[in-house]
Amino acid sequence: MKKKIERVALLGGGVIGAGWAARMLLHDIDVCVFDPSPRAEPRMKEVVENAARAWRNMTLAPPAPRGNLQFAATPAAALEGADFVQESGPERLEIKKELISQACAQTDADVVVASSTSGLLPSQMQADARHPQRVLVAHPFNPVYLLPLVEIVGGAATTTEARKAAESFYRSIGMHPLQVRKEVDAFLADRMMEALWREALHLVREGAATADELDQAICYGPGLRWSFMGSFLTYRIAGGEGGFRHFMEQFGPSLKWPWTRFDGPDLTEKLLDTLSEQSDAQAAGRAIADLERIRDDCLVSVMQALRANDWASGKVWKQHEEVLYKKPHRRTLEEDTAVGDIPTPLTLHQGIVPPEWVDYNNHMTESRYLQAFGDASDALFRYIGIDRAYHASGRSYYTVETHLNFLKELHAAQPFTIDTQLLATDPKRIHLFHTLRAESGDPLATTEQLLLHVNTKQNRATPADEKILARLQQILDAHQSLPKPEQAGRAVWAKKA
Amino acid sequence: MKKKIERVALLGGGVIGAGWAARMLLHDIDVCVFDPSPRAEPRMKEVVENAARAWRNMTLAPPAPRGNLQFAATPAAALEGADFVQESGPERLEIKKELISQACAQTDADVVVASSTSGLLPSQMQADARHPQRVLVAHPFNPVYLLPLVEIVGGAATTTEARKAAESFYRSIGMHPLQVRKEVDAFLADRMMEALWREALHLVREGAATADELDQAICYGPGLRWSFMGSFLTYRIAGGEGGFRHFMEQFGPSLKWPWTRFDGPDLTEKLLDTLSEQSDAQAAGRAIADLERIRDDCLVSVMQALRANDWASGKVWKQHEEVLYKKPHRRTLEEDTAVGDIPTPLTLHQGIVPPEWVDYNNHMTESRYLQAFGDASDALFRYIGIDRAYHASGRSYYTVETHLNFLKELHAAQPFTIDTQLLATDPKRIHLFHTLRAESGDPLATTEQLLLHVNTKQNRATPADEKILARLQQILDAHQSLPKPEQAGRAVWAKKA
Repeated sequence: MKKKIERVALLGGGVIGAGWAARMLLHDIDVCVFDPSPRAEPRMKEVVENAARAWRNMTLAPPAPRGNLQFAATPAAALEGADFVQESGPERLEIKKELISQACAQTDADVVVASSTSGLLPSQMQADARHPQRVLVAHPFNPVYLLPLVEIVGGAATTTEARKAAESFYRSIGMHPLQVRKEVDAFLADRMMEALWREALHLVREGAATADELDQAICYGPGLRWSFMGSFLTYRIAGGEGGFRHFMEQFGPSLKWPWTRFDGPDLTEKLLDTLSEQSDAQAAGRAIADLERIRDDCLVSVMQALRANDWASGKVWKQHEEVLYKKPHRRTLEEDTAVGDIPTPLTLHQGIVPPEWVDYNNHMTESRYLQAFGDASDALFRYIGIDRAYHASGRSYYTVETHLNFLKELHAAQPFTIDTQLLATDPKRIHLFHTLRAESGDPLATTEQLLLHVNTKQNRATPADEKILARLQQILDAHQSLPKPEQAGRAVWAKKA
Repeated sequence: MKKKIERVALLGGGVIGAGWAARMLLHDIDVCVFDPSPRAEPRMKEVVENAARAWRNMTLAPPAPRGNLQFAATPAAALEGADFVQESGPERLEIKKELISQACAQTDADVVVASSTSGLLPSQMQADARHPQRVLVAHPFNPVYLLPLVEIVGGAATTTEARKAAESFYRSIGMHPLQVRKEVDAFLADRMMEALWREALHLVREGAATADELDQAICYGPGLRWSFMGSFLTYRIAGGEGGFRHFMEQFGPSLKWPWTRFDGPDLTEKLLDTLSEQSDAQAAGRAIADLERIRDDCLVSVMQALRANDWASGKVWKQHEEVLYKKPHRRTLEEDTAVGDIPTPLTLHQGIVPPEWVDYNNHMTESRYLQAFGDASDALFRYIGIDRAYHASGRSYYTVETHLNFLKELHAAQPFTIDTQLLATDPKRIHLFHTLRAESGDPLATTEQLLLHVNTKQNRATPADEKILARLQQILDAHQSLPKPEQAGRAVWAKKA
């Protein structure tokens, strides 16, 4: 089979064909498309731009030169010189058979001819083709340029060599090829998706829920787990240390309850043995506690990722977090001054190093120090009464200059606190100093910062609100007693200066 | 109904009961648990610690004081003084009925009594209870302390007031309550999960796939979407601007194909109308292009989140990204010196501001500047030949001091490049200066950094490898011609110094 894939013929340029084109072009592969629709070309260009945008967000790796995108008026012209063929025509057997036969007729026997079908069988599609051994199904998921899964399914005539060649090609464009053992209608993912979908349609039909409610029932709950763990591993965890057989003994009976319209299989001893064996293999020796930790870490990361997008569970979490910040147990300047006690220095922020803040040295990444210091500055803002309403009124403090000293490393899960000392203020500026400390009190890093008060609508420096200035003055008065920090006023490379 | 929930009785302390306990304790709610198993208490304490760890990673909000965890020897003792009851006993109707009747007998009529059942009907459970109007189902998902979904289902006797009271309580502990309109077995999420699960078990039984392969078929593909978008909205996007009716006309026929064992409903005109109407309502006026952008942004964020955990699709992506970094189109110092041309300054890193790098001012967050500069330093390391093997040998450069000047704001999706100028080097140190520029060439921020070469095993400064030093010298020679940057050698608040 061809080892080097430099040019791919795409037969069909709809949503799936365009997604393939985008993924391949971004990996410096030339693509030639045949699609009879006049809308195919403009829409494909749009999809390629969407994909390029997504990949720019996805990675800091330098983008590969982009492959060449061509359109052909006939399948024959598209197939000219192709090293690989991907068919993504309409989901009808006659059409797919015709396209695949033509692809086989016009390419050498070492060119893989793959169909994107969601469920038609490769044996049927390859039946009349020349050299049918290189015909197979490679079923991707929308958007093809982002989702890594591609199911590879062979027909009666398909060789292992062809499957392997396809696998290696898809891997080279960043995908996760899954070799399907048996030729079953709709393969694996779509069978499970379709079962869920048909049940959902019944629930709408009988008025049990709306489309939106059913979507909520997935994406605020089980869907979050499914983004990184399927049902088998999830249920193994639910079953605890007793193993999968124990889980099935406990939950097996409900397979016969009317919990869906659809009958489960009989739980024979043979099936239980198979499940138990496969579940052990899947866990690969990991204890339940390890799997729980992986599950929780992934859930936390995924929900934080969605919070940044202010969408679905991320939106719920963002709103809840705002409530948490406002809880009455938060200390305010008013409370501290009421008891005549502004701490010197202030300690308004503490945290613990999340595992994803750690770099290849197993230390907290440089930029995360500044993130923690930024969180401490935000805590100071809240402490002096700068809130959403203040920002909404078009006023904010911007950092204009920052000096960091890294004294010692932080590790994953290490707790820390940040002290804050005001060095100076004037109507437009705050000059402050943060010290990040270990639980022992040891200083691990410092930052000195100059913040400028800005009218964010006119984008120019303005004096802060009188109330804010009065509070800053109270803190500054209290902090006069503190010595100037050793690292304040320094320039980098001072020893040589 | 009780407005202020300060103490909750938990009847049942298994996986679900312990998850409830953890979520409530973390929100400063006292919890009293009844569970006859001697293993319940130690296991619950373990779950509470797992939950506390996950929440520390989840938020920088100051943790609430933790509620009080007590264990009771009888249901009656647990129920004493409870403002809310959550039953999480075994999934058997007789047991649940008994626990709920007891809870109702011993609490006032304004105390909600909620069952965590996965599928039993509230009408049956409340049948013999005193004041049955406050009995309902509140079905959570494992791990209860992280997943926000809770399905609220009323029985024949349940009042709207009780449902609302439960909704408001669950919202106060960070959850997403979903009011289920009809009392159907297994409610909404579990019906869909169960359909998928039963299909999966059939596929294992017939040898079409293993447990692990079926899990892969979910979490590398459709599961990634389900973490933020259910099937209805996903398929609306797939259907394009033609709307949901168009999608169903195109994909409706496959509902009758053998793509799962389970029959879909007949697509009557009435069902099509309902689906089309509900899908329009769900989209809330968003165009397909907007939904596509939301989908892609969420997918990118989720996969990056999983990359940080090196798990499932995140692992695939991490491995692929390493390949991308090594692509031959990357420029190396060898190539530049071969043509006698080391750029002055070097431009080794470029990017585009991801939407999640932007803060409440709609500008790139302070720490992300340092992240971009860190990426530029990493690009310099790769350029001079510091790779995985070098790090694996126990050697690395650590940043010890950084000075940042913020000149202008960056916005979401803004492209930027970073120039790098070497200021000085010695065997153990690199003194460098990065300038982050807009596409126009305008400088937007600068950083001056001092890096120290470290033996990471002994954690002490050591000279760098000879080869690396020679390369640094070559660059330094080329950069002698550049003027000293204006912001180099500065201290913060210099005007007042």
